[in-house]
This record gives sequence, structure tokens and C-alpha cells, in this order.
Amino acid sequence: MLDFTYYAPTKVYFGRDKQKDVGKIISDYGYKTIMMQYGKESIKKSGLYDDVMKSLLENGIKVVEMGGVEPNPKLSFVREAVKSARENKVEMILAVGGGSAIDSSKVTAHGVVNDCDVWDLLTRKSISKGALPIGCILTHSAAGSEMSASAVITNIEENMKRGFGSEFNRCKFAICNPELTYTVSKYQTACGIVDIMAHTMERYFTVCEPTELTDRIAESVLKSVINASKVVMDNPCDYEARATIMWASSLSHNDLTSCGRENNLAVHQLEHALSGEYDYISHGAGLAVLFPAWARYVYQKNTSRFAQFARRVWDVAEEDDEKASLLGIEEMERFFKLIQMPLTLKEFDVDKNSIDKLADLCTFGKSRTIKSYIELGYDDIKNIFNSCY
Amino acid sequence: MLDFTYYAPTKVYFGRDKQKDVGKIISDYGYKTIMMQYGKESIKKSGLYDDVMKSLLENGIKVVEMGGVEPNPKLSFVREAVKSARENKVEMILAVGGGSAIDSSKVTAHGVVNDCDVWDLLTRKSISKGALPIGCILTHSAAGSEMSASAVITNIEENMKRGFGSEFNRCKFAICNPELTYTVSKYQTACGIVDIMAHTMERYFTVCEPTELTDRIAESVLKSVINASKVVMDNPCDYEARATIMWASSLSHNDLTSCGRENNLAVHQLEHALSGEYDYISHGAGLAVLFPAWARYVYQKNTSRFAQFARRVWDVAEEDDEKASLLGIEEMERFFKLIQMPLTLKEFDVDKNSIDKLADLCTFGKSRTIKSYIELGYDDIKNIFNSCY
Repeated sequence: MLDFTYYAPTKVYFGRDKQKDVGKIISDYGYKTIMMQYGKESIKKSGLYDDVMKSLLENGIKVVEMGGVEPNPKLSFVREAVKSARENKVEMILAVGGGSAIDSSKVTAHGVVNDCDVWDLLTRKSISKGALPIGCILTHSAAGSEMSASAVITNIEENMKRGFGSEFNRCKFAICNPELTYTVSKYQTACGIVDIMAHTMERYFTVCEPTELTDRIAESVLKSVINASKVVMDNPCDYEARATIMWASSLSHNDLTSCGRENNLAVHQLEHALSGEYDYISHGAGLAVLFPAWARYVYQKNTSRFAQFARRVWDVAEEDDEKASLLGIEEMERFFKLIQMPLTLKEFDVDKNSIDKLADLCTFGKSRTIKSYIELGYDDIKNIFNSCY
Repeated sequence: MLDFTYYAPTKVYFGRDKQKDVGKIISDYGYKTIMMQYGKESIKKSGLYDDVMKSLLENGIKVVEMGGVEPNPKLSFVREAVKSARENKVEMILAVGGGSAIDSSKVTAHGVVNDCDVWDLLTRKSISKGALPIGCILTHSAAGSEMSASAVITNIEENMKRGFGSEFNRCKFAICNPELTYTVSKYQTACGIVDIMAHTMERYFTVCEPTELTDRIAESVLKSVINASKVVMDNPCDYEARATIMWASSLSHNDLTSCGRENNLAVHQLEHALSGEYDYISHGAGLAVLFPAWARYVYQKNTSRFAQFARRVWDVAEEDDEKASLLGIEEMERFFKLIQMPLTLKEFDVDKNSIDKLADLCTFGKSRTIKSYIELGYDDIKNIFNSCY
């Protein structure tokens, strides 16, 4: 077990109707003026917007609205939000939505406190000194941003998507009502499931000392999500299944599943290049294509780990580690297919000629390798993308 | 899944030599004067005391010492600590030790902030308005107090042991170095293992809606602890095994294993009466006797849950739920025996005539029942104690 620091201070209010308590929760912290970030009109159609505004106004909270966060949230939006938050002397930011609204809020929160341009923080040109407090009402189980220290922002002008980890990124509170995810489409639900599984598997598939407890917790998250997914694809309003997926989303990315292990999120970095370049690709769908390809490329480095995954998560009975590893990867792929995820880059109309560019984006212009089960250089990354056809 | 609030804000610094960072950690919070509570001279013999004092003094922190916390920490000690903390204008309390030092520190922290006598807080005569911040350096894996909202204090004069739950009881930080537990005796190590398992099983054996993810996490904690225990009983300096047990201690009682479930700690309440009356009984040893007896008394209420426990934790193959349940309880008992725990009250020299008194203590003089797998009244509790001979 490697040394670790575990810090997941987000207070999670989980269950039915919890969004109606948001005004009271924020008021108890003492905040009077907040910014509310959200995406499209869907929260207005569903009645969530009204619930939230009612609760906020009843508690005397002034709300500065920033609707219109896009999937793969954009730097330009964040810059605008920072400007507005400063002008309105906003004390905290409430995200209502999924990972996009939360990530956008996180980076905005840094932008308000720091004097530099937010892109300088994302590119590590400047170090963040702090951030406004943030909270969220979750409407999509996927990114795990509600408890994570991560955020991802896309800079359209420079065609770059960058992850940004910071302890200031932890939400003070997260309101998680599984019913709010009933209306998420089958496709987006499946994308979320893959993202949750990938957060867990990325931490699981690292080469380091044994961590039995962390391994078993990761396997618990995976098995529970897989079982719940089979229910929810047919019955999107099954509370238990939606609740399992929602809670798994938080636990998959709050670092519980990397305690004592390395934490590289290698496949995520490949996928960020892909959906950064092809904005129409959903992050989870990109991961569904890349994860099995990556796994087949690296598993031989340590087959015992992939074999354990196959046996414990997929109930593979095979005794030979090499064979079991491949059977486990096949099971994963079969599951992605079952929840109707794409399995090849062809399905996205990704031009084979763009692979050089993708590998270039991943390696920041051949200036870095990606630490992973094996260390991935420019050529390795090209090989993985090429194997996705 | 029942609605729940999950809040485990303790920052955990886990690994080798982490105790040497304590001064820097406290200094970063800005505290200048702290109280340090610890037990016997063992931390001086082991060199831990010197490490801690060096780090604190190097960081300019003034230390008010309160050594002498006893196992089953005493109200009289807490009262004295409150007095000293007030006189010395202590800003935070650092516990160096196991559950006793941490629980004593927690209740002291409340005592300093509240005007009433601390016993009034424990008996709910007064409601706590807050507490000083606390941190800990853990030297024994057992109580889980390093991340829990619980504390237990014994009032010798009134012969009562009372649990005290409060959100103010969460440590701000916990320094967890598994090496510090190498010198814990075989017997106390085993007592700790039973306590960790009991914290997990108490939450697992509640009758409510399904919670697949929480169940699997609980099973992960149990299986990992059982495997590590077998290693550590023969090799007390095995880092991985000690680390697994230490991390399980924190996760077993930080409420992760009760998310979406009821949380009653019924057997703990029976045991508190036992070790409150017989101060020489270690809490974990008392639990080892009571848990199988309690399980046999209640399992028929819902055999499917006990059968799941038998199959997933103990690999029992039996298909019939009733039979599997009993086999699972037998396996638990066999494991407690393997780690040399007592299995009957006879082994403690507990007089059969005192059972009425124990049942009386558990029910606060027949004024309450204990919510459990089944609701336990005065006669049920007598029956359980009687079955322990």
C-alpha cells in the first residue's frame, strides 16, 4: 500500500426531494449572494429550476444566473462567468446539472479568487491561491465531479481540453436525488455508466503494491454499477438502480478507490484529446471505445491484475492469468455493447488521418509521456488509437 | 436505499512516518496552543512521544499535556481536561493513541465550548453547541474514532457508560501510520479486529431496503480484515496487513458502510453495559462473545441477509438460506476463536446473577428498547446474555 492522503469533505445529501432543501443548506453557511450555473432549458422543463429558485428565494438568497453551460464546458463561458461573479460580488457558486455545470462552476470559482486568466491556471502557468466555495445539485450520474478534486475545460480557440486538479475543487455540499436522473436519455445514461466504470478501473489498473481493501471496494463499485445498469436500461425510473449508479458516481471519483494506489487516469487523457478534437463525441462513449483497446495494449505488463478483475468483477472461471485477462476485457467490451455504446472509432466518423494529431494532443506535442500500466509515448498512443478501428 | 447524509470530512494522512508531520499540519491550521491527550507511558517508550513533541515544538506550538487516559475513558479525567484546557486557552486538542484517547479528546472538546457539565451532554440533558477542533495520531486500529462521529465515556460514580454522537466529533485530521501498531499485543490486536468487524456488521445487519453497493463495500471491509488478521496474528510487523486493518478501522465507522441503511449499533449497546459493569473486559472481547449470540437470537427475522453474509464473506456454499445463515454465524465464531477471542461470558468470570443488572443498564432501567434486527426489550437482552454461557 502506497502512502496516501484521503480528503473527501463534501457533505452529501442523498435522496428523494433533497433539492428542495438547497436554500436552507446555503443559508446555513451564511451565503447571501450566489451564482447559479446550469446547462440548457431541461431543468426548466422538468420543474427543477422552479424548485431550486423557490427554495433559494424563500431563504433570502440573491441569485445571479448563468445558464447555458455546454457539454465539454467552454473556457469562454467560464471567463464570462468570472466577470459576472466579480461584478455581482458572488459569495459562492451553485451548479445545477451534471459534470459540465459542476466543472464550469469549479473553474469559475478559481477565476474569481485569482488575478490571472483562468486558462493560466489550467495550463499551470499560474498556481491557484484558492477558490470560492461551490455546491451542486446533481442531475446526471457520470463525471463524479460532485465529490472529486477534478475539473475539465475546453479551450475552443486553441483546440485544447485540459483537466485541472485542485483540493479547492471539492464541493462543500452535493445534493443527490436519483429521481432527477430519470429523464436522462438511454445514451447519456450509458455514457455516464462507462465514465463511472472508467474512473474506477483507471485507479484499479495501476502497477503498484497490493491493496486488498481498495481493490475490493473498486470491484464493489464495478459490480454494483454493472448490475444496476442492466436494470436501468430497461427501466429508467427504477429508484434503486438509479441510486446505485448515482452513489457509485461519487465514490468512483472521490479517491476512495485509489487509496494506497497510483492514480493516473491514463485513458481519460487519451479520451480528452479525442472529444477535445471531436466536440460531438460524448466523453463516456469515447471511453467505451478506448478502454478495451488500451487494456489489450497494456495487460501483459501484469496479467495477475487483469485476471483478478476478470474473476472478481466478471465471474470468469479461467485459471490461466493470460487467458483470464483477455476474457475479462472481452466481458467489459460485451457489456459496453449491451448498453449500446460504440466500440470503434469508425462509428464516430473519426478520420484515420487524424490519429497523428490526436497523439500529438495527448503528448502536448510529444513533450510528455502518459504514466499508465505501461508508460505511453507518442507511438504507443498512435497504436492504441489505430487499434480502435 | 434509504435517504442519507454522508459527511466524512476528516483529512487522513496515511503511511510511514506521517506522525513527524503533525507540527506542520497543526501549524497550517493556525493553532498556537494545543492540548495533547494520551494514555500510558507506552508512547514514551516507543519514541512516538519524542517524535510528536519535536515536530510540535519545531513549529512553535505550545503544548498542554494530559497523559493518563485510561481504557474505557473516564468522565473524571475529561472534567479535569476541560478545566485545564480552559485555563490554558487551548485552541485545539490532539489525541495520541487509540479510541480511548480520541474519545476522551472529543468529549473534552465539547466540554470546553459548552457551559454545562459534560455528563449533561452525554445524557442529552443539554445539547452541545459546538466543540474545539480535534486531530489525532492513531496507535491502535479498533474504535474507528479517527473518522467517526462517535465517542464513548464511562462515569464510574454512576456506573454508566454512554455513547455520544455528534457531527462536531469528526476529527479535522487523522494521522495513520500502520507501523505505530506493530507493538500492539496479540490480544488487543484481536480485540480491535472484532470491533472493526462489529462496526461493519452492525450496519450490515439492519432490516431495510436493498443497498447493493453499500453491502458490497461492507463485505469488502470484512473480507479484507479477515484475510489481514490471519497474517498479522503470526507476523505483527507485516506492513500491508497492519495497513489494511488500520484503513478498515476508519472506513468501518465513518458511515460509508451505512449509506442508505439504518444504523443502530445494537450489539455495541449490549457490550457497553457489559464493559461498563466489568471494567476489565475489553470492548472487542465483549463484542466477540455477544455478536454470535445476538446473531443467533435475531437471524430468523430475515435469513436472506444472514445467508448473503455467509456466502459472500465466508464463502459458504449452502443454498438453503436458513442453513446458510447458521453456517455463516458459525464461521464468524470460528474466526473469533482463531484469533483467540473468548466465546463465552464464563471466560470473563461474569456472574450469571448479574444479568438482570446488565439488562437493566442496557434498557436504562427498562425505559427503552434497542432497535436492532428485531426490537430488543429487557427480556430479549436477558435471553441473549444468558445464551453466552
